[in-house]
Order: sequence, then structure tokens, then C-alpha cells
Amino acid sequence: MKYNSITPQIVDELKQIVGERNVIYDDIEAMEAYSHDEVAEKHYAHMPDVVLKPTSAEQISKIVKLANKYKIPVTPRGAGSGLSGGAVPICGGIVLSVEKMNKILEIDTQNLMAVVEPGVVTNEINNVVKEYGLYYAGYPMSVETCYVGGNVAENAGGGKAIKYGVTARYIMGLEMVTPEGDIITLGGKRVKDVTGYNLLHLMVGSEGTLGIFTKIIVKLQPMPVATADLLVLFNSVKEAIDIVPIIMTNGKIIPTSIEFMDELSFKTSCEYLNEKLPYQSAKAMLLIELDGDNMDIIESQYETIGELCMQNGAIEVYVADNATTIERVWRIRRNVAEAWKLVSPHQSLEDIVVPISEIPTFMDRLAELQTKYNVSIPCYGHAGDGNLHVTPVKDPEWSLDKWYDTLNKLLPEMYKIVANLGGTISGEHGIGHKRKPYMPLVLKDTEIELMKRIKKAFDPNMILNPGKLFDID
Amino acid sequence: MKYNSITPQIVDELKQIVGERNVIYDDIEAMEAYSHDEVAEKHYAHMPDVVLKPTSAEQISKIVKLANKYKIPVTPRGAGSGLSGGAVPICGGIVLSVEKMNKILEIDTQNLMAVVEPGVVTNEINNVVKEYGLYYAGYPMSVETCYVGGNVAENAGGGKAIKYGVTARYIMGLEMVTPEGDIITLGGKRVKDVTGYNLLHLMVGSEGTLGIFTKIIVKLQPMPVATADLLVLFNSVKEAIDIVPIIMTNGKIIPTSIEFMDELSFKTSCEYLNEKLPYQSAKAMLLIELDGDNMDIIESQYETIGELCMQNGAIEVYVADNATTIERVWRIRRNVAEAWKLVSPHQSLEDIVVPISEIPTFMDRLAELQTKYNVSIPCYGHAGDGNLHVTPVKDPEWSLDKWYDTLNKLLPEMYKIVANLGGTISGEHGIGHKRKPYMPLVLKDTEIELMKRIKKAFDPNMILNPGKLFDID
Repeated sequence: MKYNSITPQIVDELKQIVGERNVIYDDIEAMEAYSHDEVAEKHYAHMPDVVLKPTSAEQISKIVKLANKYKIPVTPRGAGSGLSGGAVPICGGIVLSVEKMNKILEIDTQNLMAVVEPGVVTNEINNVVKEYGLYYAGYPMSVETCYVGGNVAENAGGGKAIKYGVTARYIMGLEMVTPEGDIITLGGKRVKDVTGYNLLHLMVGSEGTLGIFTKIIVKLQPMPVATADLLVLFNSVKEAIDIVPIIMTNGKIIPTSIEFMDELSFKTSCEYLNEKLPYQSAKAMLLIELDGDNMDIIESQYETIGELCMQNGAIEVYVADNATTIERVWRIRRNVAEAWKLVSPHQSLEDIVVPISEIPTFMDRLAELQTKYNVSIPCYGHAGDGNLHVTPVKDPEWSLDKWYDTLNKLLPEMYKIVANLGGTISGEHGIGHKRKPYMPLVLKDTEIELMKRIKKAFDPNMILNPGKLFDID
Repeated sequence: MKYNSITPQIVDELKQIVGERNVIYDDIEAMEAYSHDEVAEKHYAHMPDVVLKPTSAEQISKIVKLANKYKIPVTPRGAGSGLSGGAVPICGGIVLSVEKMNKILEIDTQNLMAVVEPGVVTNEINNVVKEYGLYYAGYPMSVETCYVGGNVAENAGGGKAIKYGVTARYIMGLEMVTPEGDIITLGGKRVKDVTGYNLLHLMVGSEGTLGIFTKIIVKLQPMPVATADLLVLFNSVKEAIDIVPIIMTNGKIIPTSIEFMDELSFKTSCEYLNEKLPYQSAKAMLLIELDGDNMDIIESQYETIGELCMQNGAIEVYVADNATTIERVWRIRRNVAEAWKLVSPHQSLEDIVVPISEIPTFMDRLAELQTKYNVSIPCYGHAGDGNLHVTPVKDPEWSLDKWYDTLNKLLPEMYKIVANLGGTISGEHGIGHKRKPYMPLVLKDTEIELMKRIKKAFDPNMILNPGKLFDID
């Protein structure tokens, strides 16, 4: 695709739309923050030509119409906490930041929904609705920094998907601007809707390529008031994973989350935290969270799960049922990535998914890859969803060239293993441009072709976030 | 669109694909069953030219490729239990029945999923998985006759959506034949997946216009073992509906279902059943179901709900907590339509959705419509979802001409009311061709245009179930 450059005259037109103070232009330092997301590697970054901070759907509509007129790419951006380069303007042009559209517009306690702007920080919803005894269950791990708009664009997952599902389940309606600049409304305050194709959920996870969200209706539910966590040590990955379906079938309990850490992950994190738990002999660790509205039930559930774990080869079960102990076990999980950053800042945080039953086989194959390529690959993540953050880490002794060369061989080999096990390359971080080269490893040509046709149908001028997911000529 | 006719030579080619005994041709009597669904009115029916009963994805792929070559429409069909004409071949051509693809292929107790063919009767899944303590929560009211394939095509809802969601939540993967005849796979045994656009959930609810499903992966969950139902009588619709969010917020309980019946509905049904409950003074009735894995919890929940109902103006609360009493209360709900058929076989079973909080306003407006058009309009359905089966019934004294003439004025007026309240025209029955003329009343031109573009992108020759949802020239 050939795009036109932004001229000072076009910038003047953009200033007319959003106001001068909502435009960043000709200011490299201020624009740098909009050139990347949380992907560490610098070569995934790209500078925008101009950054806009619109405050309404009408302004966004005008911007998009103008971009179509002049053939200039528009890349929508939330908090920039993404992990696939989705918000990076790889073709230059306009970065459209929703940071000023950050209002919670309505808490509807009758219909148990909230209406929010895309720039609201996800956790802010829960801060506001808790006084009504309500709860928003969309819960990416970056909940304290990410925006709801970005959650919708990426169909964010997180640690609680096993019980609560991912973001899509809670998105009831969207007001959005189409790639041609029209303002439309999909869904609404309706629990059921089969009036035409499900455009609403086609938008969820479309990574800013099919529309820019301007209002989001999210579902709320009664807030759980009782919580407990179990930290369980196992002798093997297989024993740790085998317990997952047993908890749900024999135990008849759907935990809020079942987080998995392999030996490399939890040992590095425990050492980093100077944790005193006797983790040395363990080969795998599960962190199992329960929530509900009655502590008696939670206690009976964690006793059941504890017994099941011990019957199935667990070394030890620790129960955390108050804020202090819960924080202690969760910080082991939360600090894995941080601990590994001390080993090397060069990591490739991956996001594979396999059927839960295939996790042990996958871990065996991953061990072979570690040996073959002589690379440390800690692996942790959401065992209850089969969603693992496999994270090859650069040996500090290696040159960057050697590292990238190795990674370029290791990743496709790993993705092929994942595909053969019935898995896929991204569970919650998205494709963006970081994983674009790998999508053909897990999807058929016909499947990608149908996606490209949808893109062309929505965005004939290829204005919106071009170069993401796939290339179109 | 211009389509070609089926010739005896094309029928021979089709026999080559599926075998002679899986073709019905030139047999009006045998084909009649494939000319309609459960929509009562005869003018929504249309005869096919040929009926095929393929047994594999490969056969369906060949049929669809041949249909593209000769430009012949293909209308996929499940059990024919639909309520919008979705499976009716309104352009003639081929009806492709999946009735012979009726095998449960796999029960995967590790990943808590089942793999089924599209012609499996929905309830059959539960009959088979219950011995593993598992449960499929997709639950349309026609669960004992409908097919899973049809449930996916229509994104079937039902009475349990308030707790369990609709069919879409349980569809993890699809093998399907595209409108051009390619066999593709969407999703899989994966709880999370953001690898490209969400084609999987675009297919759910696409009413047989974007693909023909050949294998379906459904999610299972632990089977609830305790159940109870409350039948609650109210003095007014408003009091009955106001209790719905109170149960969820103050009570912190999400019931399995909250079914609503207005006075016209339950009185006709109770008279039909010779029911002795003192329903005479009531103006509205709720049927509230609870399920879980512990009868003590269920008891405490129904006590809480009972108290909340009495505090909020209920006349009386009946608890049904054994098979006999549960059956007694549910048969009142199940027999509403049957009871009204005795008044007149001519009914228009509608399927509107409004925000739950708007149900009382909607009921007031519906009362005005009854007076204005002098038509009885019983109203019942899924209050917890705001999904109401408004059912205008023909006065036995009226001529059919007068009836249809009235209906053609009444329905658009009702749909406009629904749209103004933030609702839509179908919650679970779909658009098909029955509601096609009304979709523009609730969707903007741009929204319908995007749907048409998706249809064209998937089906350039307009082969698959043409004339449904919208017309394309």
C-alpha cells in the first residue's frame, strides 16, 4: 500500500478538528512515547508523524474521513500496554490516542452494566462499581494500567478466564467509528441479540484494524466477597497439570484461576524475592484462586482441592486466606518476568495456547528446544486455560545477532509444535506485527484469506492500523 | 440474483456425491417436510428442488463446489425446529440436511469438551456426558428436538442464559465448509484464542449464510446436582420485573433462569391445565430456577430470594424442590403457547429483547397496542435476559386478510417501540426471512451494509442460503 505523507496543511486541518493542544507534531521527544508498546525489542517500534488526542466520537469520525481523503494511516492507541506491537504506527501517519476519552459515563444498577469511554483504566471500573456491590470480571494482568478500549481491541484474557471467561464475555455493546468514518452502534444493554451477524464480537479482538471504539457497554455482576488461594508444589509438570481437570470434574469446582509456574520460573522468582517456602525440591507450582460470596463454601472448596492435590502427588499445599498470605503467594507469580529481567533484558514473551491436556507434552518438547538451542525458556501462565507465557531469555554472554538468529529459528519450531498439539500462537496478547510472520504456521491460507476479505470489506482504503495481522497489497 | 434450475443431469452428479439413497428428488410428498420450519404461517414455506443428506464434510464440500459451478442455491437445514424461516429454501435449489451427521465423536474429559456432528440432538449431548458428571449448558427450549448445528447457526438462547449465557459461550471450535466449498477449521480445544479475527463467533448466529458446520467442539462443565424452583405471584408487572436486579445485586444470586409470564399468558395456561394455584388475583408471575452442587446452598438461596420477593410486593412464593413440584410449576410456563393454540392456531411468535429495566415500560406500551388493534397479545419469556415472546393471537372471528393486515401494522409499531427502548427484534430465534423486512427498523444502513459486505466477501456467488437476513442484488 502507498500512503501519503502528513503535510503542515493537513496538520492544520487536524488541529481544526481536535484543537491545537490535542495535537503533537514536530516534537520527537513527545512523540517517542507513542512509537512503541510494552514489547521490549526496539526494532518493533516506529515513530508516528502526528499524535492526536480526540475527545469525542464526532472528532474521530472527522479524523478518519480526512485520513481516507488524503490516504494517511491511522493507528488507534490505548494505554500502550500491549505485547504484540498492535498500537505501533508501523506505516507512520496518525496515532490516535484515546487517553482523553477516559470517563465512566454510567453505572446502570438495574441492568447490571456500565457505559465507559475507551480510555478508562480497566481497574477504575471496579473501583467505582464496588460501592454498589458490583464487579467487572474482565481481568488482564495489567489491569491497573491498561485501558478498556485496548482490552476490547485485543480481547484481553488474564488469570481469571477459567471461571470468568475473557473480555468478550463482558462486552455487551460498542459505539465505534468505522474505517470509513461512520459512527455506528453494535449491541446494547441486551443480554441476548441475534439481529444480524455478530459484528460486535467480530470487533472484539480486531486489534484496531476494523474500527475505533468510542463507547463501551460492559456487563457487571455481584462482587464476590470471599477469596482464598492455594499454592501447591508438585514433583512433576505432569502431576501439576493432571490435577486441573480433576478439580473441575471430581471436585466440581471451577476455580477463579489456576496459574502454573515451571521450575525455571518459580525458582528465579523465589530467589529474587528471597522467599522461604521450601520450593527447592519442586518441579512445578500451581497457584489456585477461589472466590465466592461465602467463606464457609470457599473453605470447603479449598479443603477438597487440597485433598485432591495430595492424592495426586502434590508435595505440599499452602493455603492463603487473608490479604497478607494471598499477597505473598501471588507476588511469586507476578515477579517471574521481573526476576528474569535481571538475568537479561532481552526476552521474547510468548503467549501460546494448547489444549490443557497437552501441557505436559508441550513442556517435554519445550525442554528439548532448550537443550537444542541452549536457551533458557522459563514457562508460566494460565494453566486453567492452557495459555502459557513461554519466555526465551537471551544468555548474557551472547551477542544480539546470535540471539535474534537463534530466536528466528526457535520460535517457528515452537509454534509448529504448538500447532501439532492443537494449539495456537496467541491466547491473549494478539498478533499485531510481532507475530504476523507466524500466523500462517497455525492458520490455513483460506482462513487468512477470509480475514483479509473482511478487512477489505470494512476498510477499502486500508486506512486503519495497516500492516497488522497480515499484509495486504 | 439469478439462479439456475436443477436439471436431471445435475441430480445425477449430486447422486454421485452423496449416493442415491441420500437424495430426494421428484417426490413432492417426501420433500414437503423440508419446505418449512416451525413458523406456523404457510406463506413462509417454499419447496426445495432437491434434498440431500450428506454424511461427511468432503461430500458437503463437493456439493457446494458444484452449486457454485452451476449457480444453484444451497440451504443448510438442521432439525427444522427454527422459528424464523432460516432453513426454508426460499430461492429453491438444494436443501442440505445434516440429519445423517448425528454422531457424538468424542467426549474429552481432560479438556472438558465434546466433539459432535451438526445433526446431534442437543439434549443427546447431556444424556451421554452425564455419566462423566459433566453438563452441556447450551439450552434452547426445544432441547429435545433441535440439532446442535442449528443451535450454532442461530446462536440459540433459551431459559438458562442469565446464568449460563447463550450457545456462543460453549462453542470452542468448528469445522465447516465455506460458501466456496473449502473445508476450514476455526478455534479448537482452546479456552483462549486471539490468533486473527474471531471468525468462529462470526459464524455463530450466521443463520447458514456464511458456512455449513461439519464438526462442532462444545465446552462442558461440572453437572449441577441440586435444583429448586420458585413460582412467585405479583400484583403488577413492575413489581415482578423490579425484583430481577435486586436478586442479583442485594441477593448476590444469579439464578439459572427467571421466566416471566403476564396475566394473559399464565391465566390461559393455568385454565388449560386446570391448575389449582390461586393465580386469579395475580397480574404477573415469575418462575425462578436455581441450580448448584449443594442443596444447603440452594435452600439458603431460595430463602433469600423468597424474602426479597415478599419485601418487594410479591403476593405469594411457592417453592418447588422435588421433581414432582418442579414439573408442576414448569408445565405452566411450557404450556402457554399450547393453551393459546386452542384460542387460535394463527399466532405470530415474536422474540424481542429490551434492557431488563425497560420491561415494565414495554409492557405498558404493549397494553396500548392491544387496545389500539383489538388483538390479544400474551407475553412471556426470559425476564432475566429481557427476552420476551410477545405473541399476537388472531381473534377467531377475524378473517385471515384482516389478521395479516393488522399484523403488518402492529409488528412494525411494536418493533419501533422496542428500538426506542434500546432493544432489538430478535434475541434467540433469528431473522431468517420472517423478520427480514424489520431489520432496518433497529439497525442503521451502515450496519446492514457492513453485514452485506461480509456476506459478499464470504460468498461471492451468493450460493449459501440466499435471501436470508437481507436481500443482495
